[in-house]
Amino acid sequence: MKFKAKFYNVDSSEPRVIMHDDDCVELGVKEMDRVRIDGKNRSTVTLVSRSDTVVKKGVVLMSSDVMKRIDVKDGEEVNIENSPKPESVKSIRHKMDNERLSSTEIHEVVRDIAESKLSKIEVSAWLTALYINGMDVEEIADFTNAMVDTGDRMVFDRQPVFDFHSLGGVPGNKVTPIVVSIVAAAGLMIPKTSSRAISSASGTSDFVETFCDVELSAARIKEISETVGGTFAWGGAMNIAPVDDMVIRIEYPLGINPRAQMLASIMSKKIAIGATHLLVDIPMGSGTKVKTIEEARAYVRDFMDLGRRLGIQVECAITYADQPVGSAIGPILEAKECIKILEGEKHPSSVIEKACDLAGVILEMGGIPYGGEEARRILSSGEAHKKFMEIVVAQNGSPDLKADDLQPGKFKHDIVTAKSGYVHTIHNKTLVNIARAAGSPSDKGAGIMLNKKKGQRAEKGEVLFTIYADNEAKGLRAKEMAMRNPPLQIEGMMIERGSRSIR
Amino acid sequence: MKFKAKFYNVDSSEPRVIMHDDDCVELGVKEMDRVRIDGKNRSTVTLVSRSDTVVKKGVVLMSSDVMKRIDVKDGEEVNIENSPKPESVKSIRHKMDNERLSSTEIHEVVRDIAESKLSKIEVSAWLTALYINGMDVEEIADFTNAMVDTGDRMVFDRQPVFDFHSLGGVPGNKVTPIVVSIVAAAGLMIPKTSSRAISSASGTSDFVETFCDVELSAARIKEISETVGGTFAWGGAMNIAPVDDMVIRIEYPLGINPRAQMLASIMSKKIAIGATHLLVDIPMGSGTKVKTIEEARAYVRDFMDLGRRLGIQVECAITYADQPVGSAIGPILEAKECIKILEGEKHPSSVIEKACDLAGVILEMGGIPYGGEEARRILSSGEAHKKFMEIVVAQNGSPDLKADDLQPGKFKHDIVTAKSGYVHTIHNKTLVNIARAAGSPSDKGAGIMLNKKKGQRAEKGEVLFTIYADNEAKGLRAKEMAMRNPPLQIEGMMIERGSRSIR
Repeated sequence: MKFKAKFYNVDSSEPRVIMHDDDCVELGVKEMDRVRIDGKNRSTVTLVSRSDTVVKKGVVLMSSDVMKRIDVKDGEEVNIENSPKPESVKSIRHKMDNERLSSTEIHEVVRDIAESKLSKIEVSAWLTALYINGMDVEEIADFTNAMVDTGDRMVFDRQPVFDFHSLGGVPGNKVTPIVVSIVAAAGLMIPKTSSRAISSASGTSDFVETFCDVELSAARIKEISETVGGTFAWGGAMNIAPVDDMVIRIEYPLGINPRAQMLASIMSKKIAIGATHLLVDIPMGSGTKVKTIEEARAYVRDFMDLGRRLGIQVECAITYADQPVGSAIGPILEAKECIKILEGEKHPSSVIEKACDLAGVILEMGGIPYGGEEARRILSSGEAHKKFMEIVVAQNGSPDLKADDLQPGKFKHDIVTAKSGYVHTIHNKTLVNIARAAGSPSDKGAGIMLNKKKGQRAEKGEVLFTIYADNEAKGLRAKEMAMRNPPLQIEGMMIERGSRSIR
Repeated sequence: MKFKAKFYNVDSSEPRVIMHDDDCVELGVKEMDRVRIDGKNRSTVTLVSRSDTVVKKGVVLMSSDVMKRIDVKDGEEVNIENSPKPESVKSIRHKMDNERLSSTEIHEVVRDIAESKLSKIEVSAWLTALYINGMDVEEIADFTNAMVDTGDRMVFDRQPVFDFHSLGGVPGNKVTPIVVSIVAAAGLMIPKTSSRAISSASGTSDFVETFCDVELSAARIKEISETVGGTFAWGGAMNIAPVDDMVIRIEYPLGINPRAQMLASIMSKKIAIGATHLLVDIPMGSGTKVKTIEEARAYVRDFMDLGRRLGIQVECAITYADQPVGSAIGPILEAKECIKILEGEKHPSSVIEKACDLAGVILEMGGIPYGGEEARRILSSGEAHKKFMEIVVAQNGSPDLKADDLQPGKFKHDIVTAKSGYVHTIHNKTLVNIARAAGSPSDKGAGIMLNKKKGQRAEKGEVLFTIYADNEAKGLRAKEMAMRNPPLQIEGMMIERGSRSIR
């Protein structure tokens, strides 16, 4: 059937066209069915919304995105036909029925998500089925390759390519620039890309961009890595496994991250970036994704097994995550703490230890013996700081960058303890919520500076931590949240008083 | 934060507001998060879409539906705050984790779907989790009651209230008006409501509306039932378990109908309509939903068990569904065949047998002994036809209605057999697809008239079935489909020739 295409500024989170009820009846399409739209030279398939108010008969409303896809302008004629459900809908059903999927089926599902041929409803069902029924390692390997195929791949002239990835979930984990600087200073190439915060207080890219650019093109990442030895860039500016971003938009409202999806997502990005050697950091602790050593070891097995199948050498490090890494949480505060350590500061040791342990494993994967010791030497000798500054400058940062130049938010609230005792618990998620309430990560100066960590003694009236904010109202909101729901717990002599109630 | 409300004609399948990216960052809301919007007197919660193109800072775009909910007009000021995820999202997670849900949890999920507080993504995850992990009978009973609570309930002054329901899936199932007429003629009250076709060639309402009104108000259904004894109305015009319609919109693209959802959906409509006695028809056959006697018996157990828990007397009938009921498929063709039988025609016997068997069970539930025999007597005596005409007139049909006045589509295609033999298989789904291609159910005259059924002999060149269409092109399309994929299979003497191939 012939229709007149009309531009309509709809949100394009799900490419759809809007057609009149009567036309839909004529074509035999229901709400959320698909149509094939033929422009003069190009065709596409989209979902259909029906309406008897916003659109007239004989007209099809489409977003600029759909118009571009078929090379049609406002007012031009298009041909529209009913289009059957894609085969991938059947594969989703198979996973709902707990069947193994073939490589072809997995590739079809991933391609159809990437090409927006599956609706949000269908992608949600896919993720839910994956969450409940899972995938075996062979399926996950196919899934990984399918995700790689949706985007670009980097090819480095210099080999081998080292990389590392943290499963995340621990606040204050500002080790990436330190690890990259040490590894690159040791002569290995590590083109590290990171993400921004989704639900955390600050992703690596959120704090790195306070002192240099992170939005680098693939060509620039290649150039810096091959000459300077490493980067700390944002991965999102490249077209690497782009289907992952589409999936995250559906995972987020559901609050799930199916294991198969998570593993395939991590591995696909590493393969697409051309990594030959990968270290996976698995933070383990009560407030993180991985809560027990058994869970952590299961991840280790999966990553090693996947690595073998995918032809990439994988090692894993299970790291302590029962409290934040270091003292700073939030973009500028973390940047400051990270750079101070590179400048020679010996505190907080948890950051130094974690960074050097991880860097040490990578050095050993690269054939450098006693990696941990060598990493510590490179850090304390200043070689890491020199390499760090080379990378910063390559990423358009200032050659005069100093930690002390970075200033956190001007609205400060000290949170003091009402009693004396030892800090026995730190709730990671509560800290993250307070930092976010204070404005982190979009307000760069917002965050938390811990004055006490687990096992330390605090006297009544002493500061436990300080909240920083760029915005006065947000700072107050964060303070209220911290008072209502204390993230640090103090162990006094008395847990509970068992006497009669006082009249 | 204060915003200016602006009208935006978005499709309202999912009530959302659209806000500027910067405002969303300020409020701390992500795409698909929720906000609470306060008008002067009323508040509501909706999902948020972010944009930096369609909307300016300080403005919130909303559909007329959302404006109505908070009693705000274009240009007026509203207050908007971040709204946490509803508790029901956690309950969906629990079902994903295969946990039993409490009555409170189930009521919250159903209420939040009804009030559009859950997004399509979340409802899809809910249905997928239900499909995979299921519910026990106690949960389904809670689910049923929760669905009843989302809509109105009918209260009849006359008791008891008889009803019946068919699980569907068998084409040509035009027995409803016959069953209702017999039961009402026997002095029992049966306020039957039906649906329109979703994926079938014709629902009961689709064919009944070719000879009388089906869109009756609840008050009118009550009045007709209490005075005349029965109706054959469309259930959709009443506000009965309205959440079901919202769920169907998500089930349809997924092609699933989770058992718990199906059972709760049927029972909730029957409870809401005030039924005290319910007969469930379970068509069983290879081309239908229920394929084996074991599956059918499992449904019987579930329905009886649910009936006991919900205080409604339930009986079930497993019926033959390996081929269509009668010969006619499509609105006018089915109406014609149905009315002919009420007028005294003895053919096709499968329609008479099924209608009288079902009516007989209902009569026995109502205390009338030898129900099946009594049903046949009421039909053959003309009492059923007299009652049928009373109901037709009450539903604004013509008092002079005759089967012969109904005319099917004028474009006819006879499909003949290329060889002689017995019809050994009839593919229900293929017949339905052909009837739908011919225009059924929206083109009232479109459909199929079977000339041969299973076990009957057809000589080469004899007509197997005739396709009817209101529209020439659709008729031809249906004919092509029938030639390409024959719905009736003829058993000749030779299944396959094993000799050498002919040169």
